[in-house]
Amino acid sequence: MAEYEAVAKQFVEHYYNTFDSNRSALAPLYRDESMLTFQSAQVGGGPAIAEKLASLPFQKVKHQINSFESQPTPGGAGIIILVAGALLVDEEQNPLNYAQTFQLVKDPAGAWFLFNDIFSLLV
Amino acid sequence: MAEYEAVAKQFVEHYYNTFDSNRSALAPLYRDESMLTFQSAQVGGGPAIAEKLASLPFQKVKHQINSFESQPTPGGAGIIILVAGALLVDEEQNPLNYAQTFQLVKDPAGAWFLFNDIFSLLV
Repeated sequence: MAEYEAVAKQFVEHYYNTFDSNRSALAPLYRDESMLTFQSAQVGGGPAIAEKLASLPFQKVKHQINSFESQPTPGGAGIIILVAGALLVDEEQNPLNYAQTFQLVKDPAGAWFLFNDIFSLLV
Repeated sequence: MAEYEAVAKQFVEHYYNTFDSNRSALAPLYRDESMLTFQSAQVGGGPAIAEKLASLPFQKVKHQINSFESQPTPGGAGIIILVAGALLVDEEQNPLNYAQTFQLVKDPAGAWFLFNDIFSLLV
């Protein structure tokens, strides 16, 4: 497994485990220059993204990952990930299918953070 | 509409129209450093990607785009696009849902090309 694939795998597990257990703890993954597109609503910057995630209209959520693929970006500066999955919210019995694209890049200290995050529920 | 959104919209229309009418004409969108992940199979470089697309086991294909979203990448160097859609192949009556992530970047001459392309059929 290439290094970017190992990083992607670890990130995807961490992201959804955190989302499902305590999504306010996702905040450190976003920085000032981060962008989130959530069902066509675009939000920029870590604090606004954390607020958007916290305000989503459900209490309980459980993601199931059906597939994910990753590729390095130009110069190995980042990692692009496409996740396809399903999620259950609150007491809902029918899973909602979704696709989500991330780009991880490194900050000056060498820590990975989310520059791009696009989430789409599938019709 | 921001410039990256206009580029993304034009690209998505061009890509799927070309794919559905004559997919060998997609070859100029890929360069030596391009990557395609197609249902977990990873192919690198324009000629190998063109060969992979040409060898897909169907004659006729029709993509329907259900949604697409785009974001700029660090420094505005690229554009990330997440498309969700459905496709019909040959005489098949049941559409297959898919998600696809692209990253467009500019070559030294200023022309956009596909650095990253990840295609996933959805279960």
